[in-house]
Amino acid sequence: MKALMTAVVTLILCGTAHGQTLQTCYKSKWGPNDQIGALNNITADNVTSAAKLVKRGKAIRMGIETNSKTPAFPPRTFSITVLTPGQEYGGSLGETKTNYNDDIIAGWVGIGSQLDGLGHIGIDGVYYNCANGREFVTAAGLKKLGIETVPAIATRAVILDMVGLMGRDPVPEGTPFNRKEIDAALKRQGDMRINKGDVMIFYTGWTKLIGKDDKRYGSVEPGLGVDGANYLASLNVAMVGADTWGLEVVPFEDPKKVFYVHQILIPQNGIMILENVNAEEAVKDKVYEGLFTLGPSRITGAVQAIINPIFLY
Amino acid sequence: MKALMTAVVTLILCGTAHGQTLQTCYKSKWGPNDQIGALNNITADNVTSAAKLVKRGKAIRMGIETNSKTPAFPPRTFSITVLTPGQEYGGSLGETKTNYNDDIIAGWVGIGSQLDGLGHIGIDGVYYNCANGREFVTAAGLKKLGIETVPAIATRAVILDMVGLMGRDPVPEGTPFNRKEIDAALKRQGDMRINKGDVMIFYTGWTKLIGKDDKRYGSVEPGLGVDGANYLASLNVAMVGADTWGLEVVPFEDPKKVFYVHQILIPQNGIMILENVNAEEAVKDKVYEGLFTLGPSRITGAVQAIINPIFLY
Amino acid sequence: MKALMTAVVTLILCGTAHGQTLQTCYKSKWGPNDQIGALNNITADNVTSAAKLVKRGKAIRMGIETNSKTPAFPPRTFSITVLTPGQEYGGSLGETKTNYNDDIIAGWVGIGSQLDGLGHIGIDGVYYNCANGREFVTAAGLKKLGIETVPAIATRAVILDMVGLMGRDPVPEGTPFNRKEIDAALKRQGDMRINKGDVMIFYTGWTKLIGKDDKRYGSVEPGLGVDGANYLASLNVAMVGADTWGLEVVPFEDPKKVFYVHQILIPQNGIMILENVNAEEAVKDKVYEGLFTLGPSRITGAVQAIINPIFLY
Amino acid sequence: MKALMTAVVTLILCGTAHGQTLQTCYKSKWGPNDQIGALNNITADNVTSAAKLVKRGKAIRMGIETNSKTPAFPPRTFSITVLTPGQEYGGSLGETKTNYNDDIIAGWVGIGSQLDGLGHIGIDGVYYNCANGREFVTAAGLKKLGIETVPAIATRAVILDMVGLMGRDPVPEGTPFNRKEIDAALKRQGDMRINKGDVMIFYTGWTKLIGKDDKRYGSVEPGLGVDGANYLASLNVAMVGADTWGLEVVPFEDPKKVFYVHQILIPQNGIMILENVNAEEAVKDKVYEGLFTLGPSRITGAVQAIINPIFLY
Repeated sequence: MKALMTAVVTLILCGTAHGQTLQTCYKSKWGPNDQIGALNNITADNVTSAAKLVKRGKAIRMGIETNSKTPAFPPRTFSITVLTPGQEYGGSLGETKTNYNDDIIAGWVGIGSQLDGLGHIGIDGVYYNCANGREFVTAAGLKKLGIETVPAIATRAVILDMVGLMGRDPVPEGTPFNRKEIDAALKRQGDMRINKGDVMIFYTGWTKLIGKDDKRYGSVEPGLGVDGANYLASLNVAMVGADTWGLEVVPFEDPKKVFYVHQILIPQNGIMILENVNAEEAVKDKVYEGLFTLGPSRITGAVQAIINPIFLY
Repeated sequence: MKALMTAVVTLILCGTAHGQTLQTCYKSKWGPNDQIGALNNITADNVTSAAKLVKRGKAIRMGIETNSKTPAFPPRTFSITVLTPGQEYGGSLGETKTNYNDDIIAGWVGIGSQLDGLGHIGIDGVYYNCANGREFVTAAGLKKLGIETVPAIATRAVILDMVGLMGRDPVPEGTPFNRKEIDAALKRQGDMRINKGDVMIFYTGWTKLIGKDDKRYGSVEPGLGVDGANYLASLNVAMVGADTWGLEVVPFEDPKKVFYVHQILIPQNGIMILENVNAEEAVKDKVYEGLFTLGPSRITGAVQAIINPIFLY
Repeated sequence: MKALMTAVVTLILCGTAHGQTLQTCYKSKWGPNDQIGALNNITADNVTSAAKLVKRGKAIRMGIETNSKTPAFPPRTFSITVLTPGQEYGGSLGETKTNYNDDIIAGWVGIGSQLDGLGHIGIDGVYYNCANGREFVTAAGLKKLGIETVPAIATRAVILDMVGLMGRDPVPEGTPFNRKEIDAALKRQGDMRINKGDVMIFYTGWTKLIGKDDKRYGSVEPGLGVDGANYLASLNVAMVGADTWGLEVVPFEDPKKVFYVHQILIPQNGIMILENVNAEEAVKDKVYEGLFTLGPSRITGAVQAIINPIFLY
Repeated sequence: MKALMTAVVTLILCGTAHGQTLQTCYKSKWGPNDQIGALNNITADNVTSAAKLVKRGKAIRMGIETNSKTPAFPPRTFSITVLTPGQEYGGSLGETKTNYNDDIIAGWVGIGSQLDGLGHIGIDGVYYNCANGREFVTAAGLKKLGIETVPAIATRAVILDMVGLMGRDPVPEGTPFNRKEIDAALKRQGDMRINKGDVMIFYTGWTKLIGKDDKRYGSVEPGLGVDGANYLASLNVAMVGADTWGLEVVPFEDPKKVFYVHQILIPQNGIMILENVNAEEAVKDKVYEGLFTLGPSRITGAVQAIINPIFLY
């Protein structure tokens, strides 16, 4: 089928080529072929230094569960189906009577714990490193900036305990995290500093609302503000995440700037976003730095990934 | 909808309850509530020792790509669709002109790099820790042994370079890896030994066939034999994987014993299997041990996961 | 991919072949190759006679809507996604600026108005015309009795207005329609009689509950009883339907006989079932017979179809 | 979930409202609320007259099969999965030992025999009856012009045997059907005339290529030309279809006018299109007119439908 209708489709693509001009766009400092952005900030030193933070021998998963009830940005839905192929009516395989279950997913990737790849957010049709949406976005998958291009991620993560800082659990919706709050959290956690190549994870307690008040959970959130996003970008962090559905503060600081923090991080600075990643267990252990590893499922041309980062300390 | 037709369904479940007896089954040594099997072998010591193996600061991804062309066990299929919700016909959001792409998956989980959970393979309808298939398997997902129960995985991995050992690349189909071959590989790699809680990864070069000879790739493979599976289980490894679609040798050593190695590992010993995990880069670096981390996407009730383990050294 | 893993799969199928014996089964009176059952009762005379019933020139659709909110038998779910492939970010095709929307379905077929094909219901693993479930049912589709085999359906339909007969709207759940009620309805509607090859449609008013009391709608229903099913089968009808989710009376007349009316109709007599087909408009017009036509989408190997029969009078 | 994130989404929709102006658009002659276009041409007289054409008592299905191998416009794909919910490992329901198969679809609607609804094709973002794409197109479905709004369709169909006319089977790709060819076909078939409210079906023999030369089948086709489309529209036909994947001639008569015939029929004249509808059996019977009935599955918000029209004569 791949070869089908080539004539028609080629014609169509020619037909769509005219008309769009790119006024502004953000080039990667790692060159025109760069597809991984701020992950370039992670060096071998980041990896070895982070590995040295593994002291207690504890590994926690940061992923929350994804299923048909997980609150999600509309119209996202999710379902899984389990079946027993070839074994209907009591069949099994061979004299070993082998049985197996298999599973099928039909759903949007942006549900539960997610990685927002660099192909997720654009500015007026233009994406990270001046990628033109009309050229690399197809219904069959991204031709650039897809999740399959993400390298192995292993570096130090810094957890910012905003619950501890603000004394509210969860931190209320609409609370912005800007330079002031970020620095205060770092100071409170023992005068920590952020290094180039670090992954930043905010802890707000927000996932506690899931299943209890899904409407509140999904319509608003505390989170990163515009000033905070620019601050973290200036520090050359590798990724930024939070235990909320969208990382950035909602209602937005300026209601006309819709998901502007996403734009600052992703298309402007090439910083991928982690959503619904929960560092609660580390916070309870009063551990705020450790080795963060993430290997998103390498689905070719995918925009996002359902993830489960591992944090070791 | 969840509340619908409860009366009918309850009736149905009552109707199916009789009739099946469990002749033999394998209890977990970690108790009747255990759902994670040999992952219990991983201790804090495993984690800290493995972290010490991170010397060069290199992190590699072991996942291969998953897409509609990835050869897969029939009738498994896979597709992804990318779309721009709410932005049809040139729309964008707010005065920031924010755009976003989203993605939908319709596909079988067992495609590409996979984790076979303990709910994947059974013996005559009975699964790990004597779980009765009729009771925990539903079309809407597993009620036990689902992927969401898998803890953070971080431990030492030992890579066995079977290409180097056998001088064939790829190792030919039908080549069994049993105690003799495993011990020879360990010896060749500097008298390595396997520790309790290790993840074992065979390297065979098999994924080189993908896209070149999909038919050969998917119909046969070199891999773990029955004796080798029992040997690794006796050493209390945490997981076993390979760069092949099914880990175990195909054609099977005994053609009547269909996926018997899967049965030894999963239902008999609670050892999850990793498929299509590729350690080629480490082998090229002549590195055979390191820190292995894996956080499978926590899809509730899933049997398997599309994975991308991270290996650090 | 179709050619992949043939060796393994052949082995597996051999492995499952033994063990099941068919104690009883129902042969088709139209021969061992028959796949359409009672639709064989429809002759050219049925078609021409039914066409003569088209007097007012009115055509009504009997289908209800299918969407994510349509109450359905668990765990059935449904979703549709609309997208604009190749036109992201304001693109269009050619100087004609052609745009198009496309749509994707991810859902269970048994939602909304349905045709239950002869591969839907079996007795202890055996289906219509002694088809052995283990042999013709595969995860990739039915190899026999699939919806694609259904011929063009055009014949007289007789509508039985059970609301009018019983003076209850809707007819209460648990109300069985047996020979007595069927004959009474026919008599009330002008001493109608049922001919060989007719489609029978019960009108109960039940779909009025959709969106108002989905739980009641989907957990119980009035409908055909065991005696009524045998009666209609003895009259050689072509199909039987109703404006309920399951046609047959629920709670079942005998709670231990689960969907027994389905078994009488489908595997015993080769009579396909129509669910959620609504004849309300004809009932309001006091028209109880007309030309019924149905062409189910010919999805290869499908068990059911989402339908919208047309009734002309 | 439907209630989730209302605040955010409302904001977004406000944000996208500005900016698009509708230069030209085609209003329906049936008023601003019209959603069914030329189907309004079908009157009770059309229905009763067409029913009188049913003489032989023959009913044929015009639908071809839809499955994973059906050639389709890229990137459309299709799969069906059959499973036995709640009956895994030999279970059945009740003492009747009831079994059932169920089926799940994951696929694009535009595969196999299709109805192109009025929401399928637009002109620079504007659809039939001046519907603004930005307002009625959502990822969760069309808010206007969806397939669920299509009424029962029953009227006369006229089959135009272009194979017979042109003496080529199949008619070669790139052969346009314009007024001249249409009139010649009508004359050849006994001086037939087209009535207001008729459905026009071209027979080209093109589906014979499916499975034999899918590439040719799907990349080109004979079909309706621009002049022919305007001619049929001027005659107030109800629908136009053919036994090809796209009805209109490909290569297009003017290569810069991409799917211009689709635009003339759908957004300009409100005439829905039928694709891959095969009248071969009637042509073999030398029958060129009859009663055409169609009830597309009423999936809410769907753009298209997989169809199987019934033709009686």
